[in-house]
Amino acid sequence: MKTKYLLPLAAVALTALPSMGFAQEAGVEAATHTGYIFTTLLFLIGGFLVFWMAAGFAMLEAGLVRSKNVTMQLTKNIALFSIAAIMYWLVGFNIMYPGAYGADLADGEVSKWLIDGWLGPFFSITSLEPVGLADTETALDYASVGSDFFFQLMFCATTASIVSGTLAERIKLWPFLIFVVVLTGFIYPIEASWQWGGGWLSAAGFSDFAGSTLVHAGGGFAALAGAIVLGPRLGKYKDGRTNPMPGSNLALATLGTFILWLGWFGFNGGSQLAMGTIGDVADVSRIFANTNMAAASGAVAALILTQVMYGKVDLTMVLNGALAGLVSITAEPLAPSLFMALVTGAIGGVIVVLTVPMLDKMKIDDVVGAIPVHLIAGIWGTLAVAFYTGNWGAQILGIAAIGIFVFVTSLVVWFILKATVGIRVDEEAEITGLDVAELGMEAYPDFTKG
Amino acid sequence: MKTKYLLPLAAVALTALPSMGFAQEAGVEAATHTGYIFTTLLFLIGGFLVFWMAAGFAMLEAGLVRSKNVTMQLTKNIALFSIAAIMYWLVGFNIMYPGAYGADLADGEVSKWLIDGWLGPFFSITSLEPVGLADTETALDYASVGSDFFFQLMFCATTASIVSGTLAERIKLWPFLIFVVVLTGFIYPIEASWQWGGGWLSAAGFSDFAGSTLVHAGGGFAALAGAIVLGPRLGKYKDGRTNPMPGSNLALATLGTFILWLGWFGFNGGSQLAMGTIGDVADVSRIFANTNMAAASGAVAALILTQVMYGKVDLTMVLNGALAGLVSITAEPLAPSLFMALVTGAIGGVIVVLTVPMLDKMKIDDVVGAIPVHLIAGIWGTLAVAFYTGNWGAQILGIAAIGIFVFVTSLVVWFILKATVGIRVDEEAEITGLDVAELGMEAYPDFTKG
Amino acid sequence: MKTKYLLPLAAVALTALPSMGFAQEAGVEAATHTGYIFTTLLFLIGGFLVFWMAAGFAMLEAGLVRSKNVTMQLTKNIALFSIAAIMYWLVGFNIMYPGAYGADLADGEVSKWLIDGWLGPFFSITSLEPVGLADTETALDYASVGSDFFFQLMFCATTASIVSGTLAERIKLWPFLIFVVVLTGFIYPIEASWQWGGGWLSAAGFSDFAGSTLVHAGGGFAALAGAIVLGPRLGKYKDGRTNPMPGSNLALATLGTFILWLGWFGFNGGSQLAMGTIGDVADVSRIFANTNMAAASGAVAALILTQVMYGKVDLTMVLNGALAGLVSITAEPLAPSLFMALVTGAIGGVIVVLTVPMLDKMKIDDVVGAIPVHLIAGIWGTLAVAFYTGNWGAQILGIAAIGIFVFVTSLVVWFILKATVGIRVDEEAEITGLDVAELGMEAYPDFTKG
Repeated sequence: MKTKYLLPLAAVALTALPSMGFAQEAGVEAATHTGYIFTTLLFLIGGFLVFWMAAGFAMLEAGLVRSKNVTMQLTKNIALFSIAAIMYWLVGFNIMYPGAYGADLADGEVSKWLIDGWLGPFFSITSLEPVGLADTETALDYASVGSDFFFQLMFCATTASIVSGTLAERIKLWPFLIFVVVLTGFIYPIEASWQWGGGWLSAAGFSDFAGSTLVHAGGGFAALAGAIVLGPRLGKYKDGRTNPMPGSNLALATLGTFILWLGWFGFNGGSQLAMGTIGDVADVSRIFANTNMAAASGAVAALILTQVMYGKVDLTMVLNGALAGLVSITAEPLAPSLFMALVTGAIGGVIVVLTVPMLDKMKIDDVVGAIPVHLIAGIWGTLAVAFYTGNWGAQILGIAAIGIFVFVTSLVVWFILKATVGIRVDEEAEITGLDVAELGMEAYPDFTKG
Repeated sequence: MKTKYLLPLAAVALTALPSMGFAQEAGVEAATHTGYIFTTLLFLIGGFLVFWMAAGFAMLEAGLVRSKNVTMQLTKNIALFSIAAIMYWLVGFNIMYPGAYGADLADGEVSKWLIDGWLGPFFSITSLEPVGLADTETALDYASVGSDFFFQLMFCATTASIVSGTLAERIKLWPFLIFVVVLTGFIYPIEASWQWGGGWLSAAGFSDFAGSTLVHAGGGFAALAGAIVLGPRLGKYKDGRTNPMPGSNLALATLGTFILWLGWFGFNGGSQLAMGTIGDVADVSRIFANTNMAAASGAVAALILTQVMYGKVDLTMVLNGALAGLVSITAEPLAPSLFMALVTGAIGGVIVVLTVPMLDKMKIDDVVGAIPVHLIAGIWGTLAVAFYTGNWGAQILGIAAIGIFVFVTSLVVWFILKATVGIRVDEEAEITGLDVAELGMEAYPDFTKG
Repeated sequence: MKTKYLLPLAAVALTALPSMGFAQEAGVEAATHTGYIFTTLLFLIGGFLVFWMAAGFAMLEAGLVRSKNVTMQLTKNIALFSIAAIMYWLVGFNIMYPGAYGADLADGEVSKWLIDGWLGPFFSITSLEPVGLADTETALDYASVGSDFFFQLMFCATTASIVSGTLAERIKLWPFLIFVVVLTGFIYPIEASWQWGGGWLSAAGFSDFAGSTLVHAGGGFAALAGAIVLGPRLGKYKDGRTNPMPGSNLALATLGTFILWLGWFGFNGGSQLAMGTIGDVADVSRIFANTNMAAASGAVAALILTQVMYGKVDLTMVLNGALAGLVSITAEPLAPSLFMALVTGAIGGVIVVLTVPMLDKMKIDDVVGAIPVHLIAGIWGTLAVAFYTGNWGAQILGIAAIGIFVFVTSLVVWFILKATVGIRVDEEAEITGLDVAELGMEAYPDFTKG
């Protein structure tokens, strides 16, 4: 996903396509009708796999909260995805790829399909436009606009999914959803435009293949800001001790992890953005294999480390280890050998085991471990790209710029929400559980609570 | 899925292929070997995604029944899919596409593959054959017959899945499965042949791209007939009040909804029936994006509406809202702009919230809300097609014809079953729960019931 | 999956490709760039579907163990997959396809990608090499090496998944994982090399399209050896009676079955190993349809048979019947007609219902029924291939060779583990449950146990 959308690269036409990714090792063809279909198909398959990650987050989070908050967590997850789908269309896509909705963009039918009902230049925020649009192509010529929109939308939704887990079990539904509106409509599209929209970060040499920073650390920073403003759950930190609040359904949490792992093949593989040549499909293949390896090594690292450190294996750490491995390889899933993918993922797994207790020491209550998994492993993965590009400065710049932007804007939004509508349920509701107190509906009404 | 199978359209040969759907906006190629592979691949991917919907229905329904009936609901779901797979092969496919098993259909190997073991002309019911077969092609020339059979089979099974949820918690296993035999072997294939088999409804100008009426309202009408004959659960309607019987596992219900949402990309996208040209794959892409938008807006509509009407969000309504959005867009997922997809889906979501209580007022006990979701939203979606075709009469004709046929034949079958083997478990079994009373096996034996 | 990897077939070049499978019925093209992309895509889609089976096994097994052992079963499943992913890279792939890591194998980049970090000739075990490598091609020319590695890895992991279910509820975590290291790094790759690595079994005329014996019976023999060494669960067989220990979550078990069913389309369909011609994609299509039919008929056979034998349907038998149908068709999913696929799968379903009690009589405690499903139905499916090939001797030879090799080597490993570190938890831990005793973490801490 190094490629810009409407901007110079597209403008220099199809001969430039094979230079995306590392597609040099095999013979390349000029993009043809067949290549267009293959790349569109990559977006569709990649897109439905990343869609599936929304179910993964829902199951992971539903499994890691206490049973009294499960209905609420499920509600937040399906609602946030739905809101993301609408907001990304309403404003996000056009912010991320400036001019995407412009009258000069697309041939008639596609343009009408996209912008019919759109609220117009009010949301266009053209001042964010990083480079002049005058000389850009008016439409994609290597894949269908619909497939591209579908695929990109899923990344935006993923960013929001990351936030919901951290803030579980104490945040009110509607303020959370208002934050999702801002995150998916504005914050994510703006920072993502800096890189994938052909903005200043991509010009500065920053590299983030599928979004270790743009999506995962981005979501993690938004979650961190929320966790700070919201505060920990009642009783979580008491008398200097961290009180464990075990998840209510580890089968669901494991299912969620497997779903995310599956979806990640689309997340990373689809980010090759091309499948019409032997070189590109071979790249996609190695991305699949590397992605799988990093997840596996992240899981094994957490398995071994929890055994060594605590004398017993901790399943939730193993699950988060796999996810951290996945996040770690996301910034560069193509360049590493399988062995380096193993190393990259294993370090991600180690990071999770070591940083989960650190957060607790700082009294930052992250219910599902999303900050270690997505933010900290995301930073690690993004930094590791410099082993291949050599450009440490650009990587640090990208992490810092996106981190500061997302964290500060999120903090502002959370503070505004806190000061106006309030973001936290009252104590009684938190003790009772959000399901009964806020929604009047238990997730497991037939099972006696222990 | 506007295209006929063996009939005139195929007969006029491949130049007609691009006119399926709205594939005009991009350059088209003549169907080639490559196009054949792409379209076959579309059927395979679409088919396994629609297969996956069987799991979605199983999880949705298992989550929405009480824990004492979960094993039975799971049993019904895996059994109905399996029976559909056999019956559709044994008779359904040949009824739906008359002559599909005819000796003149296919070249030797494929024909033998399909009809070996088939029970012969007894089931062929050639009188249903809507047009002469004399001049049809003898086999598909744009995709593999195996992939087409695989894909079509999944739609037949979906129709049966819709029925099982409505009738849960009180219907006997075997009578239900006998109904499934009739539905998947005869009722669905007959009505579907009217449209997709090139029958009189398609000649009359009726349009139902992927089956809002043929599959969803069809299944809904069969469920409605069953619910009327079967009667409500004990204690559901008492002293003029509707007694809520909350689902036992909302995490499963949410998982089921996400599975269905994922599967729907195959359901609607695969119904383009072609992926071998730029125009077709671009159409498939917009179908994916529109389908996703309609689901999202259906969920958001139910989210907002339940908050406004009841002062709190109702997760089961949000889930059904997403599903109703999906059903609504199914009759025409290609023509609408994203904005119109949003509107179409949102109206589906509103329909669910408003009609669930209406059914209860009529004392029609629909355990999972399948009638509002599949029947009523299916009708809405089918009517909405007329905004694009202008042919309201044909849409109303199609809904009425299929509705009356499915409802009446189902009613007859249910009455016969009731009069002969009986369809309802006895009171004691219903109170105890079907799992212990009928199957001797609890779904969650380790958990104490509240 | 009849094709060898680096060996003669590849050496005779691409004109031989269409002869894989039964791809003769339609026009074939020479493998082209497009064919390379299609076949690679088949490996990627097939691979992620088979990956998904890991989640299926996890859910099936988590649903069929008692709630006190669920966390442990989940931990084993995610750990075994992760270990398989590493071991298959570290040694397995090179054992299975001798010389795959050889310096003369691949062009520079791909070779470096694979073997970077590899432990070198120490693991190469070239003495197992069945035929000379001197005249083989140096790389795949019909699909990307990365996609092939990704796809093959998933089969190795599946073999290990089969073992974990049988030995559930009493085996220690780490000794089990050590066995997985040996199984996925050595035992499976060695026996699989005999057939798919172009070894002596394939030369002897043995046929096992997608692995009824290589994967399923192989895993089943390893499980059987383990079950014998490990012994039954406490109280399972007492005073001549078999004490039922019902699974704790049949919704999960059903979900797992549906996941496996879905993944099997990739397992069998991907084993066509080619999708670049009309003939190949038509073969893949019929494999999908046959696979589905065998699962359906296996489920229906178990449904009817349990009703007849026990007077009530047994859901766990229906689930295992579907899986046995799938295992049965795996040795030859292409040659049968749909009717023969139905017959093959139905016999698989009958096998399960009849052999589960037989195992209990022999006091072999197989917690999830993996031995009937994978071993016995796998043997049935492999024998049934002789109906098409006529070569009964080769089928029996293959089953015997692989069976003896896997069973004996597994037995040795289990005995060594038992004699050294011990493989069984102590009685108190088994009674308490492995989750609390070994891991200190309950899967469902909020639900009171009945």
